[in-house]
Amino acid sequence: MSRDWIKGNAVIGQSGGPTAVINQSLVGVIEGLRSGLQAVGAVESILGMRNGVRGLTRDELVDLGALHQDRLDLLAMTPSAALASTRDKPDSAYCERILQACKRNNVRYFFYIGGNDSSDTCRIVSEMAAADGHEMTCFHVPKTVDNDLVRNDHTPGFPSAARFVAMACMADFLDNVSLPGIKINVIMGRHAGFLTAASALARRNDRDATTDGPQLIYVPEVAFDIDRFIGEVEEVYARKGRCHIAVSEGIQDKNGQSIGATLIKNAQVDAHGNAQLSGSGALGDQLADLLKSRLTPAGGKAPRVRADTFGYIQRCWPDASVVDRIEARRAGRQAAAFALQGHRSGSVAIVRTGKGYGGEAYASGFERIELADVAAKTRHLPPEFLQGTHDVSQAFLDYCRPLVGELPDFERL
Amino acid sequence: MSRDWIKGNAVIGQSGGPTAVINQSLVGVIEGLRSGLQAVGAVESILGMRNGVRGLTRDELVDLGALHQDRLDLLAMTPSAALASTRDKPDSAYCERILQACKRNNVRYFFYIGGNDSSDTCRIVSEMAAADGHEMTCFHVPKTVDNDLVRNDHTPGFPSAARFVAMACMADFLDNVSLPGIKINVIMGRHAGFLTAASALARRNDRDATTDGPQLIYVPEVAFDIDRFIGEVEEVYARKGRCHIAVSEGIQDKNGQSIGATLIKNAQVDAHGNAQLSGSGALGDQLADLLKSRLTPAGGKAPRVRADTFGYIQRCWPDASVVDRIEARRAGRQAAAFALQGHRSGSVAIVRTGKGYGGEAYASGFERIELADVAAKTRHLPPEFLQGTHDVSQAFLDYCRPLVGELPDFERL
Repeated sequence: MSRDWIKGNAVIGQSGGPTAVINQSLVGVIEGLRSGLQAVGAVESILGMRNGVRGLTRDELVDLGALHQDRLDLLAMTPSAALASTRDKPDSAYCERILQACKRNNVRYFFYIGGNDSSDTCRIVSEMAAADGHEMTCFHVPKTVDNDLVRNDHTPGFPSAARFVAMACMADFLDNVSLPGIKINVIMGRHAGFLTAASALARRNDRDATTDGPQLIYVPEVAFDIDRFIGEVEEVYARKGRCHIAVSEGIQDKNGQSIGATLIKNAQVDAHGNAQLSGSGALGDQLADLLKSRLTPAGGKAPRVRADTFGYIQRCWPDASVVDRIEARRAGRQAAAFALQGHRSGSVAIVRTGKGYGGEAYASGFERIELADVAAKTRHLPPEFLQGTHDVSQAFLDYCRPLVGELPDFERL
Repeated sequence: MSRDWIKGNAVIGQSGGPTAVINQSLVGVIEGLRSGLQAVGAVESILGMRNGVRGLTRDELVDLGALHQDRLDLLAMTPSAALASTRDKPDSAYCERILQACKRNNVRYFFYIGGNDSSDTCRIVSEMAAADGHEMTCFHVPKTVDNDLVRNDHTPGFPSAARFVAMACMADFLDNVSLPGIKINVIMGRHAGFLTAASALARRNDRDATTDGPQLIYVPEVAFDIDRFIGEVEEVYARKGRCHIAVSEGIQDKNGQSIGATLIKNAQVDAHGNAQLSGSGALGDQLADLLKSRLTPAGGKAPRVRADTFGYIQRCWPDASVVDRIEARRAGRQAAAFALQGHRSGSVAIVRTGKGYGGEAYASGFERIELADVAAKTRHLPPEFLQGTHDVSQAFLDYCRPLVGELPDFERL
């Protein structure tokens, strides 16, 4: 049974902050197209956008058709975005240029791998193409270490970053036990605290924060109060002679004001109007200075306070979660499969079909959702994943643990 | 054949910054004593110092004799110092208190795992005990991620930290290609640049910096000139539209003045008189600000400059080098074996017996050296490991590569 496929080229782009598995999704789309729409004759060339839609508008396209499967396999295991990425957030005029580039290059199948801004770009381009009468299938493939896409159980990129955060906090907690003091680790996540919450996996066997660290976890979803923070650190430090803290770069006060932006003078502001939080140790250093000055007893010695900012390596660390590798690849293939089924637009969402705890094996599948259902929306840590002002719940640990793969056990004397 | 062993207790301590494999050495000493001096009846109890010599002077000792081998095996794989560490650098009066504690606890076998300061403590205690007539065998077991002990081909802890640095720079270089700009990574090593030099392993197949990054590597052994630095960054940035930089926290100017201490106002100073370089993002942030201000064209836009400081996780990351795990364990056992052979003091030094390149398999062994030969001395990157003002040589890559274990390959489009 043959169908009247729109014949033309397919284009794939990568957008936003890269991850350890975003190339898995790129390769997944290529594989899905090769065995699907290209095999049935609908897709002629498979093209890659250089630097996402920015390159597309300039016709900076790479032919991905000649890549041997061996090279694709190595590319999939390579962290970061092989096509290069962009932080551009297109407005209508920009999307119009994207559409013109698609028409110019006879693009009939458009795949964009990215977060919520990218799904919104995909939505606008899809609507513009329809209004223009340019028949073009548009699919969004999810990607973000922040895990903040709605309608997804979790997003490709998050499990690997969570794995890094858990291992880093485990190692650094033991370092803090060895040379005691107050230690702050600043973790990515401008709006959602999932990645910072994953620091709780550093504790062994779901034991609580009274045994293993981090003892205090601060996420953007819980209003950050500087005086309460200092009191909580003081309490742990008085009891244990040390304190291990995980802080999201996105912590905010009860009015939604970013603590980082407030503390950091001269913060750089990017094209989206966001203060620069990553790629600088400023927030951690400011919090450390605050603790030093506020916790020094009158006439006494300042406590040893140190801050590390995990920085960009947390999103691209090469030891990716196995679950993440597999799901990111499948998400890309699935987008191509939905297009083969005749869907004209959509986003691929991960659905958990096996819990991965309580005796039930972990399993996941995919569903097609409308672009408008995910575009430009932000998912936050739900209340049931939080516990008190500075911890996560058992429900979060149950949710997160199956995603990150095996973590090293450790022993203490 | 029986010998007249001095009968008494053995004590083991860990000192200085912890590493991913310092517990391997602890377990190695325990194993070596169990099968050696304890088996022949010379050692009664095997004790651990809590927080190194600081705890020893307060009789804060842990009985390590009852630990099951299964627990030792897990302990060995656990990063950081299980006995807890200390930054104390004992003077004569302090060493006198150490000696008194040894006499009080009938310690006849003293093992101290640490860097060059720790070997000096070991030397002083050994000499004081001899002068006092307290017969006590004193051995130093090498440990430092800085790789700055003389007479050692390399030191336990360095290969694992070098592995982390190589993987982090590899991932972060690809991130920099994906979202171009100027990226600075600050790496540990106050006096020696070995760990920063290991960033060159991030490049594939020994290809030079014109293909893969980091393109610029700055170590303490090459005088750092701010104007030359800015010029070198400008040149790479103009040519590639991006620049990936590895900088040692210990970079210094031609007069030996620390660049970090000069740039960082209000730097904390520790008991050794050293400015706080780790546990803060200040040096990276200062260098980034400098580049932003100096590389902004008149009336133009500042380049995107980001800085990450790898921080404490580089010394304790749980995915240790296999060579390092094995050698650290053996170094501990070897110290116990030298004591069993009747040596009264010394340090264990790693000797490379197989190059690990040019068709020769990597192999290593151990020799006993005098405490005075290693104590309080600092090894630096030799000139043959350097190339120009901002790179390392092929000789360094050949030297370092066999130590870190297999690194992930990657692919670029």
